[in-house]
Formats: sequence, structure tokens, C-alpha cells
Amino acid sequence: MAFVNANYLKLKAGYLFPEIARRVNQFLQSHPDVPLIRLGIGDVTEPLPAACRQAMIQAVEEMGDRATFKGYGPEQGYPWLREKIAAHDFQARGCDIDASEIFISDGSKCDTGNILDIFGDGNRIAVTDPVYPVYVDTNVMAGHTGEANERGEYAGLVYLPLTAENHFTATLPSEPVDLIYLCFPNNPTGAVATREHLQAWVDYARAHNAIIFFDAAYEAFITDPAIPHSIYEIPGARECAIEFRSFSKNAGFTGTRCAFTVVPKGLKGQTPSGEAVELWSLWQRRQSTKFNGVSYIVQRGAEAVYSEAGQAQVRELVAFYMENARLIREKLTQAGFAVYGGVNAPYVWLKTPQGTGSWDFFDKLLHTCYVVGTPGAGFGAAGEGYLRLSAFNSRENVVEAMNRVVAAFG
Amino acid sequence: MAFVNANYLKLKAGYLFPEIARRVNQFLQSHPDVPLIRLGIGDVTEPLPAACRQAMIQAVEEMGDRATFKGYGPEQGYPWLREKIAAHDFQARGCDIDASEIFISDGSKCDTGNILDIFGDGNRIAVTDPVYPVYVDTNVMAGHTGEANERGEYAGLVYLPLTAENHFTATLPSEPVDLIYLCFPNNPTGAVATREHLQAWVDYARAHNAIIFFDAAYEAFITDPAIPHSIYEIPGARECAIEFRSFSKNAGFTGTRCAFTVVPKGLKGQTPSGEAVELWSLWQRRQSTKFNGVSYIVQRGAEAVYSEAGQAQVRELVAFYMENARLIREKLTQAGFAVYGGVNAPYVWLKTPQGTGSWDFFDKLLHTCYVVGTPGAGFGAAGEGYLRLSAFNSRENVVEAMNRVVAAFG
Repeated sequence: MAFVNANYLKLKAGYLFPEIARRVNQFLQSHPDVPLIRLGIGDVTEPLPAACRQAMIQAVEEMGDRATFKGYGPEQGYPWLREKIAAHDFQARGCDIDASEIFISDGSKCDTGNILDIFGDGNRIAVTDPVYPVYVDTNVMAGHTGEANERGEYAGLVYLPLTAENHFTATLPSEPVDLIYLCFPNNPTGAVATREHLQAWVDYARAHNAIIFFDAAYEAFITDPAIPHSIYEIPGARECAIEFRSFSKNAGFTGTRCAFTVVPKGLKGQTPSGEAVELWSLWQRRQSTKFNGVSYIVQRGAEAVYSEAGQAQVRELVAFYMENARLIREKLTQAGFAVYGGVNAPYVWLKTPQGTGSWDFFDKLLHTCYVVGTPGAGFGAAGEGYLRLSAFNSRENVVEAMNRVVAAFG
Repeated sequence: MAFVNANYLKLKAGYLFPEIARRVNQFLQSHPDVPLIRLGIGDVTEPLPAACRQAMIQAVEEMGDRATFKGYGPEQGYPWLREKIAAHDFQARGCDIDASEIFISDGSKCDTGNILDIFGDGNRIAVTDPVYPVYVDTNVMAGHTGEANERGEYAGLVYLPLTAENHFTATLPSEPVDLIYLCFPNNPTGAVATREHLQAWVDYARAHNAIIFFDAAYEAFITDPAIPHSIYEIPGARECAIEFRSFSKNAGFTGTRCAFTVVPKGLKGQTPSGEAVELWSLWQRRQSTKFNGVSYIVQRGAEAVYSEAGQAQVRELVAFYMENARLIREKLTQAGFAVYGGVNAPYVWLKTPQGTGSWDFFDKLLHTCYVVGTPGAGFGAAGEGYLRLSAFNSRENVVEAMNRVVAAFG
């Protein structure tokens, strides 16, 4: 009989969002007519920018003419998209990133999982707590951990707590690590990393020859001009960091699917025998062999994000969600909650009252206000006692949800 | 320093198609004005079916309205697409396959690589020779092989030669194997597997508790009604086979990107300690964790393949390429070549004359006829002495290319 990857059996059965769906469905069965408002999962709700739609319709039409039909594209993405990303998202911010270092993909979830393909066993891996579960689960699946304990922590991972005490910015590890996952603006806490904090991480990584996986999926929501959008704004980051970006949240591409990963040339890891190997070449080979590029149509839609009209539409979209976030913060504060995030990120991280457990507060919010949040404990042990609310919804729903919260808790 | 996956260093530097591109470019530099005709890479050339384009344009427009906007879809694909595939491609052929067993993806290249994620180490792996290089390279990258020898064969893999003597249908292995890659209609030889041949493989797999990875990307090109389109037409295949399918070649989706994998419920592998584990659950978890679904727009395009208009348009597209294949066979035969394939597959596999090496004949065809083929040796040691010609081109180009071949060799 064929051997399976038994590491999968270490994964905890209930992924966060299926468990939320189960509780919500159970509640709806006994209360079928309640006007439920979902501020749980971080999915966008507003229409795709017109510039992107127009570009995609034109691309579909090109597919109808033999002269402009597109078959296989480059696995790494079309040069016209890579060049616009490099120029606009990096060079315009003073980051020394070339188009050849941009790898277009169908999602940051895929990329943050797949990146482990080019890394070996034996690395010491650090994640924050709370954390986007994909970072942890993909390491479990790759055999980089032991079993989970009763708090859901996997043996072999180094957990860096994000707490109110450290302003939800991970403290440098006290033990040496080789791979470090950082996500800023942070999912789920909504915290951001200052230039000084990122510089400390880059300095740590260079001193320890570690690699930082920097997930900047939410960079578009940064409103404070002092906060870096890319880790490559930090001197030395080319020597220690891979960055993940997405069109999901800025341009509403969660259902359209386009993202990219930046792997600087010259960035290196080593073989067990100590030979230095360039990661760019490995990722280039990985993508050429196990990926066939993003749909031409979708890449044209992503390219339109960088047009003048696209830029204006994306700014408007981001501003819309950020006004939701502001409203959520304001009303939660009015209701007496301690709240974090929501200023440079579309997530508000609220402290549950009087030490209520995350899941208990989730249930209370569901049953009392008909509002769905995401229990902080679902993102890791240090998320216990918190709940995440997302700004991705209509204004009307956000206002109504917050009115209910104020009425129930204020 | 972080450890890399050193298995990548075992990969041979020159992947087949880059080497072809290098030789073609070198030739074009010294002969910039030759009317080159490319019958090398297996990429489609004709417009996307109108039904697919219409459906995609409508889907883009839905994205512009909050009421019909689509965010994250199910990672496994939308039920309406999975149900149409199950009904049309499987149930209509008598295959007992349910929609829940269909996993929509962005490509068969990705799927045939990613499937290894759910399998462990220690499996004995069989591939045909010649073979689609991705099967081999992804096993090398996963650490399932040793180094390559001078013939390009990796230690630890079991190679099953496809030769004129065995009618290009793999002979059952003489040693026990656990994972078996089969591709029929075959890339590159254009051969097909009869019902009896597939039954022998299913019987072998069940007797040895092996899993067959059945790549049916070219099933639409089968013209002989006696040839199975799916391995699930064979009794017992649900207990031993995973099937890969694609919209790339039937509907011209190579640049649009949609495919699917069939994992029957109840199909099992084992842990090192001998516990049986269902593969469907592992693949479901793998896709939920490391993938975020195919673009809604593209899935609507794929769904349109199953409309009445879509079916007629796909039939016309396939018939167009198969007439190209017929012409290639006819003219090559007229020119005195021994030819295989091209009847139930879009590839013609020609024996090079007088024992000429694959690459030498590739060069001769390029320099004499300005026609680009694919050297058989690029697909494996047993492909030496063969060359693949693809039927994916305009009628005009195919006719012109064949006239040149007849003039040069006839």
C-alpha cells in the first residue's frame, strides 16, 4: 500500500472557519429569521474596480481572435505586470526590487504554503501568536513540527506572542531561529510594525543568517505615512527577506485570484553540507515545474490596478473599508471595550470583557447581537481573550452591527 | 543560515523547452528572415470557444455589482462546475464519480506536482519512458529519488519503456511499485491504452495496493469509441486511481487556466505504522490549506464548456486539430517516415530516419525545413531516436510545414 504523508494526521481537525460556520449554522437553525451580520472572515464585499473589469473584458475578447489569443504565458507572470509592480509598489518607495524578482501567482495563501518547497528540514521556525493559521499548518504538513499540545501549540515551532504589552509587535526570539513569519499590517490583530521594529528584525535575521517571510497582504490599508509598506524599505532586507503581496484586499481580488511573491536575487540559503544556494533560482525552478502561470485575463485585471483610474478606484475602495474600521473602533470604544488595530489595517482586535473566553464571547455576540466575529483563540493560544472584527462589509451592515453592540454592551 | 531543499540540486539544469528555445533563437539570429513554423510545444493556437468567452464576460460584469460580486469561493471549486463535470465527463460514461470527488484547480501541471504533498516517503514510484518531465522532476524535488545517471535516469525511480515493440503501452513492472504515473492518450507518443490494458493496470494496482495517477489531459482527442476516456470506466479503478483532467487542450484554456483532479472517496494509503488513511480527506485538507480556489470568472468559463453551444464549439476545435494530426501523419508517411500516434491524440511521434539521434534530427528539421519539433530524447532515454510533432497550429502552417518535410525527405 502507498505511504501517505502522515504529518497531516497531526493537524487539528477543526480549522477555525469551519468551526465558526458550524456554530453559526446551528444558531440559524433555531433562529432562522435573525438579521445576521458577518464581520468574521476577512473577505471583501464591494465590487471589483471598473478599471479591472474593463481590462478583463478586453482580455477575454482578445482570446476570441487567433491573432491576439494567448496560450501558455510565462510561469512567473507576464513582464508587463511584473514591471508595473516593481516600479509602482517598490521602486517608487525607494526599494531596490527588479521586475525579474516578482513572481506572479494565484494567491498569497498558495505562496506562503508553497515557499516551504524550496526549504529543507532542520530549520528552526518562528511564528507569531496569534498567527494566520496557514503558516503553521503548512509547516505541520511539511513535517517541520511535532504534535500539538492541548493549547494547540506544535512542538518544534518557536511562538512569539503578540500582546497588548508589546503593542502586538513580535519580540525578537531569545533562541536562534532560521525562518521567521511576520505579517504587518497584522492579521489578526491589526497592528503595524514601525520602521525601527522592522529594522530590528532585519538586523536579527542578518546576524543569524535567518530568512524573514514578510506577508504584506494588507499594506494598502496603512494610513500612517511613517509606517513601511514593504520590508524592502528597510536597509539590508534584500539579504534576508522574501515578501508576499496580494491583490485580494486592496483591489477586491479574493474571488478573482492574483498575488505575487518577491524573491531578491542573491538571497541565499545553504545545503546540509554548507554550500550556499540562491533562493531565487530555486523558486524560479519550483514555479516553472509546479505552476503554469496565472490566467492571462486575470493578469490584465491586475495590471489595471496600476492605471490612473485603477489607482483612484483602489484608493476609494480602501478608504471605504477604513471608514468602516473607524466606525467599528469608535462604537466599540463607546461600548466600553478595549480595542486595537483598525487604524492601518482592516481588522479590529477587541479585548473581551472581564476575561471572557474568545469562544464564549463569540457565542455571546452571535446570540445577543446576531454579529459574527472571529475568536482570537482560533489564531493561537495568545489570542485567547480577544475577538477579531473585520471592516469588510457594507456601511449599512457595519453601522447596524455596531448599534446592536452599543445597545447590548454600552 | 536557513537550510534549502537540496533535492533541487539533483535536477538537471536544462529543462527540455528552454534548450529548444535556445537552439531556435541561435538559428534565428543567423537566419532572421526564415518563415519558422513551431510544431514543438503542445500549446493551443485557436481562439477560445465563444460560449466560454460569453460566460466569462458575464462573470466579470457580475463582479461589478455588490449583489452579484464574488469573494472567496470554495477551495474545491463551485458546486455548479463540479456537478457538471461529474455528470458529463463521468456519470454519462458510466463512471461512478460524485461531484464531491472533483477538485477544481488552475492546472494539471500543478495538480500532478502537488498530489505528492499527501504522499509520504518510501514509496516505489514508476514512470513511463518517455514521460512528461513534470512527473519526474516533482519527485526529484520531493526527495523521492537519488541522482541522475548520464542517461538522465534518476536512481530510485522505476522506468517503464514505451516502445514501438510494446505499441507504446507500458508493460506491467516486474518489481512491486506503489505509485504509478500513466498518461493516456499519451504525451509525447500519442499512443492510447485499450480497455484491456487499463484493466491490467487496475488489476495490478489492486493486487499490489498501489495508486495509479492517471493523466487524461488529452482524452477529448480520442476518436476510437472503444478507447476509455477515464480510468473510472474500468471496474475497480475507484479503489486504486486518481485522475487528472484539464480544460487546456479540449477548450483551449492553456492561457485561461482551469483543470481538475478526481479523488474517489474511500481510496486509501497507509501510514508508516500501517494505519489506513483516506486520500480524499488529505487532498481536501491540502487544497483547503494551500490553495484558494480558481478565479470565479474562469470557473464560469469552464462551466460553459458543458453548455450545448460550448460542447459543439469544443468538438469543432478538437476536430480542427485532429485534421491537422491526420495531415501530419499522411505527409510524414508519404515522406517515408515511420509514424505513431496522431489518431486519438494531438501528437505524432515519428521515428527518426536511419537511427539519427533525436537532437540531430531536431536540428536537421530546423535547419532544412524551418520546422520546430520536440526531440524524443527530451522526454526520457527511451525517447531517443524519436521526435514529437504537435497538431496545435493553423491549417496553413501545418500544410506548409508538411510540404517542406515532403520536399526535403520525400
